[in-house]
Amino acid sequence: IAKEVAKLLEMKAQLGGDEGKHKFVLKTPKGTRDYSPKQMAIRERVFNAIITCFKRHGAEVIDTPVFELKETLTGKYGEDSKLIYDLKDQGGELLSLRYDLTVPFARYLAMNKITNIKRYHIAKVYRRDNPAMTRGRYREFYQCDFDIAGQFDPMIPDAECLKIVHEILSDLQLGDFLIKVNDRRILDGMFAVCGVPDSKFRTICSSVDKLDKMPWEEVRSEMVGEKGLSPEAADHIGEYVQLHGGLDLIERLLQDPKLSQNKLAKEGLGDMKLLFEYLTLFGITGKISFDLSLARGLDYYTGVIFEAVLLQQENDHVEEPVSVGSVAGGGRYDGLVGMFDPKGRKVPCVGVSIGIERIFSILEQRVEASEEKIRTTETQVLVASAQKKLLEERLKLISELWDAGIKAEVLYKKNPKLLNQLQYCEDTGIPLVAIVGEQELKDGVVKLRVVATREEVNVRRESLVEEIRMRTSQ
Amino acid sequence: IAKEVAKLLEMKAQLGGDEGKHKFVLKTPKGTRDYSPKQMAIRERVFNAIITCFKRHGAEVIDTPVFELKETLTGKYGEDSKLIYDLKDQGGELLSLRYDLTVPFARYLAMNKITNIKRYHIAKVYRRDNPAMTRGRYREFYQCDFDIAGQFDPMIPDAECLKIVHEILSDLQLGDFLIKVNDRRILDGMFAVCGVPDSKFRTICSSVDKLDKMPWEEVRSEMVGEKGLSPEAADHIGEYVQLHGGLDLIERLLQDPKLSQNKLAKEGLGDMKLLFEYLTLFGITGKISFDLSLARGLDYYTGVIFEAVLLQQENDHVEEPVSVGSVAGGGRYDGLVGMFDPKGRKVPCVGVSIGIERIFSILEQRVEASEEKIRTTETQVLVASAQKKLLEERLKLISELWDAGIKAEVLYKKNPKLLNQLQYCEDTGIPLVAIVGEQELKDGVVKLRVVATREEVNVRRESLVEEIRMRTSQ
Repeated sequence: IAKEVAKLLEMKAQLGGDEGKHKFVLKTPKGTRDYSPKQMAIRERVFNAIITCFKRHGAEVIDTPVFELKETLTGKYGEDSKLIYDLKDQGGELLSLRYDLTVPFARYLAMNKITNIKRYHIAKVYRRDNPAMTRGRYREFYQCDFDIAGQFDPMIPDAECLKIVHEILSDLQLGDFLIKVNDRRILDGMFAVCGVPDSKFRTICSSVDKLDKMPWEEVRSEMVGEKGLSPEAADHIGEYVQLHGGLDLIERLLQDPKLSQNKLAKEGLGDMKLLFEYLTLFGITGKISFDLSLARGLDYYTGVIFEAVLLQQENDHVEEPVSVGSVAGGGRYDGLVGMFDPKGRKVPCVGVSIGIERIFSILEQRVEASEEKIRTTETQVLVASAQKKLLEERLKLISELWDAGIKAEVLYKKNPKLLNQLQYCEDTGIPLVAIVGEQELKDGVVKLRVVATREEVNVRRESLVEEIRMRTSQ
Repeated sequence: IAKEVAKLLEMKAQLGGDEGKHKFVLKTPKGTRDYSPKQMAIRERVFNAIITCFKRHGAEVIDTPVFELKETLTGKYGEDSKLIYDLKDQGGELLSLRYDLTVPFARYLAMNKITNIKRYHIAKVYRRDNPAMTRGRYREFYQCDFDIAGQFDPMIPDAECLKIVHEILSDLQLGDFLIKVNDRRILDGMFAVCGVPDSKFRTICSSVDKLDKMPWEEVRSEMVGEKGLSPEAADHIGEYVQLHGGLDLIERLLQDPKLSQNKLAKEGLGDMKLLFEYLTLFGITGKISFDLSLARGLDYYTGVIFEAVLLQQENDHVEEPVSVGSVAGGGRYDGLVGMFDPKGRKVPCVGVSIGIERIFSILEQRVEASEEKIRTTETQVLVASAQKKLLEERLKLISELWDAGIKAEVLYKKNPKLLNQLQYCEDTGIPLVAIVGEQELKDGVVKLRVVATREEVNVRRESLVEEIRMRTSQ
């Protein structure tokens, strides 16, 4: 009986184990995704365009760890701090996943006492946000950052950052776009002349930041209701934040009786004028708008801020055009490095971050819609055989090709059918097939077949590498 | 008085704040590091060599999130599970940082019902190990994985994995190396014929795995003392694990009166023989050793396992040659995907992981020792001026160059000295300087200076792009 019970218990345990297996959830964590080979191919195209641009502007590249000491991130992100991922305390240091690449960059500069660098950094960042994945919003997503650190003459690096955004968005052909520009000093000056108390600058600023998602009436009631601003001050702000334009608006505000009396606003407007002069030299003012409603949420900005948005897509191929909003943003943060330096030494910085995930979403949709066939490998030739028992010959030949730097594949079968080998080439886009057979081996040749045209030609074995290179160059 | 007290309290708070600032620890988390532009330049060289090889073998590329559901990693790593980083429970799913790229790959296959793929994946993984950073051991480190999944004829993909390791290590010119090969089935068969009870196979296997770091005597006493193996069984194992060789050894063991009676061992030895035949066709048996002491710690291996080690460096440039040990490893894991599939459907896999961090350490040391100057940017030309008040002209010219795809920089100063501009080129390795001056502007030319030779030539503005391209091509 004991034996039988033991058997039954064992069977039950097994069943339980199987049930456990079935309940196992097979998914990636909320707000994250895998990239398939096809998605990676699109992603690499975009990265290439961006990296090429960063390198064109003379940037070096750095990398930092995916997590930082928790205290490194503390006090840098204002109201967004609640979105930071913390690691479990498993003994040792308290760690958090990076929230952006800017704070790690500032930590890197202070730690290594670097006062002068132009660098890019492409890496994933983490935010416990509510993901809206159809619009390209994830909890794990790439940022592509370009920053210029150092004490320089005003607005020259700032203008270069905007030029970079302009180059990248033009290059990627995402459709029409607009780069909104403002300055934290102009915002702060505006708050001051509107009668916002100093202590409320930051919180009112983050209300203004919501104007791209909410109508003014809602933002106003947040300011007055939740944040206790006087209705007069709010209405006053309301007048300013609807203004946008170019050099003409800057000139007008420089004459504004109230703003022109405010030291910060005057400084900001003066620099904005200089910026627009440089942007005129770069020939890009057509897509730049000085916009007083642009605020940007992050605490660390001190000067120019900017954000690029895509305008309504005119691409007829996309069936359901999605609102994609911001695809790049950045600004000047002259105080951040000083927060890390033991002696508070400042290193002025300005930088831009390209919102790559939204760009992916658009390009992915476009590829889907166009039915463009994207190759996910670069294989030049499949080594095949027409008869059986030629595995060894195939392996010998492919080894020669690999050693000569040819991108080559072979089916992992002892005796594959020729038809299956040709089909594999059709499916994966391999342009050439190198066929070995008894006769070819005797004659010291390989039969080279062009998949697209079905043309076949015998090539002497010693010329094969050269022939493949010639036929697949370009 | 109240006012004075408030003031004093405020001052104290400020002082307290400052003290806090001073105590702030400016570092990266334990076991992690930043990569400087110079290190990144070396890293990109290595990545390029590896990716080129993976693409030569027809691999696609995928990416997965940096964290997985905690349960995805559970029960995959045996004794190493304690080294997994968990995320803090902030509400929502329980997450862990990935420990390797193999388990996420298996999860990806099962989740997407993929039964056939050859892919590579290069990304960071995380282990709460005791870092030995001088030897290239970190808590955050890159893995470069290449895997072949699918039901194929035996040992063909396995042989290709070894060919890939051979190509990469040869390509990187790291010095002499050896690839040790064994098979889990041979190990298990060996344990069985030595009298190890079934239940102790895994734990005895992880003792054997320590043979590359410990002498046999210590491993033996761990087996007998801690793990309760009989001294006779241990001694018996001791005889086998000192064996290593090639086809001859395989043949000898196939005749071994005990091993040849064990089904698993016989299967493993048969496949090992086939593997060596393929490796002979690839011409790489010279650097392959069938080694019965190779065990590898991970639970999921089911067939062939292998590990590449660098042999004593003969490079005289390196002052203190470090023992670098393993630089690549891998094996066959036919059961892992089935652990994720609700119906337990298996997808046989074999793969290799390149231990990039140790390779970096070696190459970094070599660069240090050789005093080779590594450029960290690709800038072709600096746009400079010889006189004052030419900032606008410099910006106009550089904008033209950028738009034509030329990699160009300009100093962010209104009136930089020519000497400083030339010095900047010397420091950063920029080969050309395009100098604008009053006279050149009048004449419609730009003075192009070759930094290395100090040669100067006037180039018509409309030919400048072509001239720069020509002089920097190659």
